Amino acid sequence: MKITEIKEARVSIASEIANAYINFSKMDVSVVAIHTDVIRQGEPVIGYGFNSNGRYAQSGLLRERFIPRLKAAASESLTDETGENLDPFHIWNVLMANEKPGGHGERSVAVGVLDMAIWDIVAKVEERPLAQVLADRFGDGTTDPDVSVYAAGGYYYPNDDLARLKAEMQSYLDLGYTETKMKIGGAELSEDQRRIEAALDVVGAPSCLAVDANGRFDHDLTVQYAEGLAPYGLRWFEEAGDPLDYAIQQRLCEVYSGPTATGENLFSHQDVRNLLRYGGMRADRDILQMDPVLSYGLVEYLRMLDELRIHGFSPRNCIPHGGHQFALNIAAGLKLGGNESYPEVFAPFGGFADSTPIQNGRVTLPDAPGIGFEDKSALMDTLRDHLG
Amino acid sequence: MKITEIKEARVSIASEIANAYINFSKMDVSVVAIHTDVIRQGEPVIGYGFNSNGRYAQSGLLRERFIPRLKAAASESLTDETGENLDPFHIWNVLMANEKPGGHGERSVAVGVLDMAIWDIVAKVEERPLAQVLADRFGDGTTDPDVSVYAAGGYYYPNDDLARLKAEMQSYLDLGYTETKMKIGGAELSEDQRRIEAALDVVGAPSCLAVDANGRFDHDLTVQYAEGLAPYGLRWFEEAGDPLDYAIQQRLCEVYSGPTATGENLFSHQDVRNLLRYGGMRADRDILQMDPVLSYGLVEYLRMLDELRIHGFSPRNCIPHGGHQFALNIAAGLKLGGNESYPEVFAPFGGFADSTPIQNGRVTLPDAPGIGFEDKSALMDTLRDHLG
Repeated sequence: MKITEIKEARVSIASEIANAYINFSKMDVSVVAIHTDVIRQGEPVIGYGFNSNGRYAQSGLLRERFIPRLKAAASESLTDETGENLDPFHIWNVLMANEKPGGHGERSVAVGVLDMAIWDIVAKVEERPLAQVLADRFGDGTTDPDVSVYAAGGYYYPNDDLARLKAEMQSYLDLGYTETKMKIGGAELSEDQRRIEAALDVVGAPSCLAVDANGRFDHDLTVQYAEGLAPYGLRWFEEAGDPLDYAIQQRLCEVYSGPTATGENLFSHQDVRNLLRYGGMRADRDILQMDPVLSYGLVEYLRMLDELRIHGFSPRNCIPHGGHQFALNIAAGLKLGGNESYPEVFAPFGGFADSTPIQNGRVTLPDAPGIGFEDKSALMDTLRDHLG
Repeated sequence: MKITEIKEARVSIASEIANAYINFSKMDVSVVAIHTDVIRQGEPVIGYGFNSNGRYAQSGLLRERFIPRLKAAASESLTDETGENLDPFHIWNVLMANEKPGGHGERSVAVGVLDMAIWDIVAKVEERPLAQVLADRFGDGTTDPDVSVYAAGGYYYPNDDLARLKAEMQSYLDLGYTETKMKIGGAELSEDQRRIEAALDVVGAPSCLAVDANGRFDHDLTVQYAEGLAPYGLRWFEEAGDPLDYAIQQRLCEVYSGPTATGENLFSHQDVRNLLRYGGMRADRDILQMDPVLSYGLVEYLRMLDELRIHGFSPRNCIPHGGHQFALNIAAGLKLGGNESYPEVFAPFGGFADSTPIQNGRVTLPDAPGIGFEDKSALMDTLRDHLG
């Protein structure tokens, strides 16, 4: 088989939200469509990819380095041994040729966007959902029938903050979610405690509410918040310090007995290995949130999962950042611990298939071949608008 | 003062060389010219920047994110308190606004290119060499009168390898260098030992020859090479393992009593802090090679030097990657341990001023204001060709 065309574009996902670190007023994503000469159901197979929110579009790197490498490669260097489907691992090596080690950012996003489209093609050529392909290749052959998803939000509002926070939390419950996540660290601890208590008024069980500091705390503030949060017994305490400050994470794990979570800003298996070596993470409770798109795609994510196993962790420790159908397929196929979701922001890239609403905090996957984008009409409209 | 124009272009520095990890057949750099409304010697001050070799041009990130942020910023957010010169620290904050933590690659290069041009402007406005500006602002007011530079090369040749390696080493001595560096890890240890012995035949003292594995070795090969290299007493053993595998570096420092070197692929002070925390580096002998351009510029490099001091290291432990006049000014002004040089490759970006040849392994700095690019005619020709 051959790749016949690769299209690429930038799409804005600007929104008014902010976390403790950045605002999203200029946020955008790269979208790609990879066309092939394989015919399924009378049409050439096309794979689609885009990056998760939080890191910007990678038009430059895609146009200048990664798409040219893919186009320049001989077809047989991209396919599996049958020659009838693409091999994502071979393609990864083609994409990363002549890239130096270290420096894992930005290019990791560009490669991840292409990797998503490649896996979409692989599953479409097999005429099966990606989750099933992954379960067969890397698991026990069975997928999770549904996946736990939580609603990430809980933003700060300039006016009437507590009431609007409660309304936001209620809107998630109304959509079918049972677990939610809210921001902390944008206010004093005492104010954040009032916000947590307001959210708990709506969400109910503390085990259904996680908090996220987005990497803003130093050592002292981490300890102060650990003490201030401990009595609540929350679902998890996420990204206290800088994502590369493993000493802060280690300290948090020493002083905070509840679950902690981090990893969404680590983009290579080498960085994840360092977190596991030095961060004091506890396999019986802590959560790893690496994003399979921002970090060089599923090929690299599988290497991260290998590092987890070596260090005594399970795929169930993983609840990836991303909030889209690709991460959901990975969660179901590789039996992760769940998946993030961003209701009503980052549309139409966030969220799942039209035919699979959230029910009791869980979501099923459609039977559509590939990642299932074709069962999400707003997303397909956007992809077709930008990619022809 | 105001920035009046920012020009940006891509320039190929393709060469036939390869290290144990990549070849340089598609290597390129970004070049920028930042124009201002400040007049010196009858002309508006223009600052020039470009990235060090080894990481690719960043046209996309410069055009899509970083140059637009600089252009959109109010002039008073870019200047110092007098309003009569730029403030590189304020500018850094403008460039990095709404960038998430972690993921330190590619964007670190784009920011570094702009940071170089900003420092060129700052020193030109002051009508002094950058080294002197840095000594006054961050040091004891005096610069090193000259800087030790070593010739990095020692490539593998497809034919007649030993003879060509010796000729290459002799060419460096003929240029005035006394210390050189050669590649290892592209062959078996026994073959690399033959190559080292051939190079020593030319260079003489083992303390004048360093070796560089470019991050290719695993734990076992690191230990094997440590044992095989120890008898020579070489200048240093560079980048044994993956740059983020601090456990390999720690192991190397345990089993190898000679100096080791690493850091050119760490692009943030957080990554450097991790190396210092976990890598077992020894302040009395080891070398840190972070590149002030590839890693978000001199503003971030100063943060790295702060981390070094906290961990008991001195700026003298630093011999930066880069091989250009910007790194040389930093070495002289901040009193680092030396500077890398790449004779005859990466031209015209590598190398120093036309008026300052290498003598006895050391190089002086011209009195030209700024970084001194105007005293390097081939570089200025290239910059003017591409930037108008």
